[in-house]
Amino acid sequence: MADTNRVWRLRRRPVGEITDDVLSLETEEVPEPGDGECLFRLKYLSLDPTNRIWMSDMPQYMPPVELDAPMRGVVCGEVLKSNTTAFQEGDIVSGIGHWADYQIGTPQTVSVLGETGPVPLVDAFGTFAVVGPTAYFGLLDVGQPKGGETVVVSGAAGAVGSIVGQIAKIKGCRAVGIAGSDEKCSWIRDDLGFDAAVNYKTADLGPALDEACPDGIDVYFDNVGGSILEACLERMNLYGRIPTCGLISQYNAPEPVPGPVNYPAILMQRLRVQGFIVLDYADRYPEAIRALAGWMAEGRVKIRQDVVDGLENARDAVKRLFNGTNNGKLIVRVSD
Amino acid sequence: MADTNRVWRLRRRPVGEITDDVLSLETEEVPEPGDGECLFRLKYLSLDPTNRIWMSDMPQYMPPVELDAPMRGVVCGEVLKSNTTAFQEGDIVSGIGHWADYQIGTPQTVSVLGETGPVPLVDAFGTFAVVGPTAYFGLLDVGQPKGGETVVVSGAAGAVGSIVGQIAKIKGCRAVGIAGSDEKCSWIRDDLGFDAAVNYKTADLGPALDEACPDGIDVYFDNVGGSILEACLERMNLYGRIPTCGLISQYNAPEPVPGPVNYPAILMQRLRVQGFIVLDYADRYPEAIRALAGWMAEGRVKIRQDVVDGLENARDAVKRLFNGTNNGKLIVRVSD
Repeated sequence: MADTNRVWRLRRRPVGEITDDVLSLETEEVPEPGDGECLFRLKYLSLDPTNRIWMSDMPQYMPPVELDAPMRGVVCGEVLKSNTTAFQEGDIVSGIGHWADYQIGTPQTVSVLGETGPVPLVDAFGTFAVVGPTAYFGLLDVGQPKGGETVVVSGAAGAVGSIVGQIAKIKGCRAVGIAGSDEKCSWIRDDLGFDAAVNYKTADLGPALDEACPDGIDVYFDNVGGSILEACLERMNLYGRIPTCGLISQYNAPEPVPGPVNYPAILMQRLRVQGFIVLDYADRYPEAIRALAGWMAEGRVKIRQDVVDGLENARDAVKRLFNGTNNGKLIVRVSD
Repeated sequence: MADTNRVWRLRRRPVGEITDDVLSLETEEVPEPGDGECLFRLKYLSLDPTNRIWMSDMPQYMPPVELDAPMRGVVCGEVLKSNTTAFQEGDIVSGIGHWADYQIGTPQTVSVLGETGPVPLVDAFGTFAVVGPTAYFGLLDVGQPKGGETVVVSGAAGAVGSIVGQIAKIKGCRAVGIAGSDEKCSWIRDDLGFDAAVNYKTADLGPALDEACPDGIDVYFDNVGGSILEACLERMNLYGRIPTCGLISQYNAPEPVPGPVNYPAILMQRLRVQGFIVLDYADRYPEAIRALAGWMAEGRVKIRQDVVDGLENARDAVKRLFNGTNNGKLIVRVSD
């Protein structure tokens, strides 16, 4: 164990894009765990669009990260010391922590990761910690797709979106993905089995969706909000569902963004628009992980991870979530 | 039976407010019922905010009224001739018809009104045809309030809103109404038993809602959209529900209206925003009517009707729904 610790601290709230002055990497002392706590060393840090929410002080689902506090993240690490029976030295734990080499965990913030079977730890963490259960509960519990229906997902080559479309296929739906490059579109269509893919940066979105969804849209899994939400709202079938998972198009907006201009479609088409956060499903995680692990073993759910080496690269890496240059689930490998 | 008929026809689609040139009253022949049809004479015409939707060609839940066609309305009349066993001469029928003295009905458009017991026909029609079931299913099925929760309703002195608040009280909730005059506010608070009322025209809406809803909002029954929706979205509790019944603030808008600027609250607070149309509950009308009639008999649901005499006054009367000068359920009495 090193005798110094590296900690990313939030220095100011981003306005628009995440700039370098938003986070600073500090060298500090390794903390000592108190009663009921453990000390763990970070192995993997998950980078997710929700990090941008936590950096801001917009109304949100957890308290924002305080200024000058360590940046919050979903983490996976190995227990080095424990002052609680909940953890033993050598345990691999996962949960909510910090962007830091060494950090304190409690039974309220992390839990021991079970056996991941043949799935390598980095894949298990990348898929099961956040994005897999998000896709699983958001699509199945909130979206409630029925066989034969059309499911459209935005951010479709992203970590959540790519799994949403594959689960939609497993459930007998037509899966249509919206993504931001031709490479991403061919990946979801040719490798993952989506029925159609629309490149929103080059296509005329409305007509492209009309062609991709000849029977309209029954479930629109919203990761982005904005003009893509408006285009989908316009094409929703009666009694359609819109699980609202993310609104990434708005997180970096320096000014308030108006809601969709065709909001009345919610009334006219009797839609259900429902927000959810995967943490609400914490006690049902085992169900999602069991299903996902099974589908992955059968080759019916494929994942792609984008692993960046070095905690010092976390700040540059997180920016890639917002300019579309990540290729799959973004993870920082801090130690092995 | 007269030998001429009066028919209001839609002449052009309103832009902004309903102006006189939108509808014209024509003298025409009394129609002859064909096979499977009946002829009925209009007794009462219900005027509802949704009439404004039907006049427009905005995307909507039924086809818009065609230009030069008779204006559509929810009607109640007496059968004069019948060429179907579904209706007999003298039956009182209710359903979707036209703004016209004499008109054709079919089993697809109208049905025989059952016994209304001690409730006078005009009250039964005014309450049971549209607004009572709208309030009942919208609040209970879509809003799903639990005892002790706070229910806020806009258009609270309107025909639907006033019943929503009273049902909320019956279900053990705190009922808060938003209305557009002090008279309306005292009526819902002092006569109908709402816990609090906010005059959105004179109050500072945000602080007034904070005071009226010390525990936040669990169900916001939306009749209006616009800035009132934004103020309520800002105060929704976790897992709150927003039954979307109407968006009257937008129907007269000549330009597209942006959606709520705090749309992300749907995600952050995990809200469910759900549109509904009472026609979707057609087969459960008896349940709503039974419950409402019981509550009315016990004095727990009070109604106020605003009855205007004369079909020739329908055009002037419908405008009052949009400037707030109606006092209760607006009905045109055409014949007795």
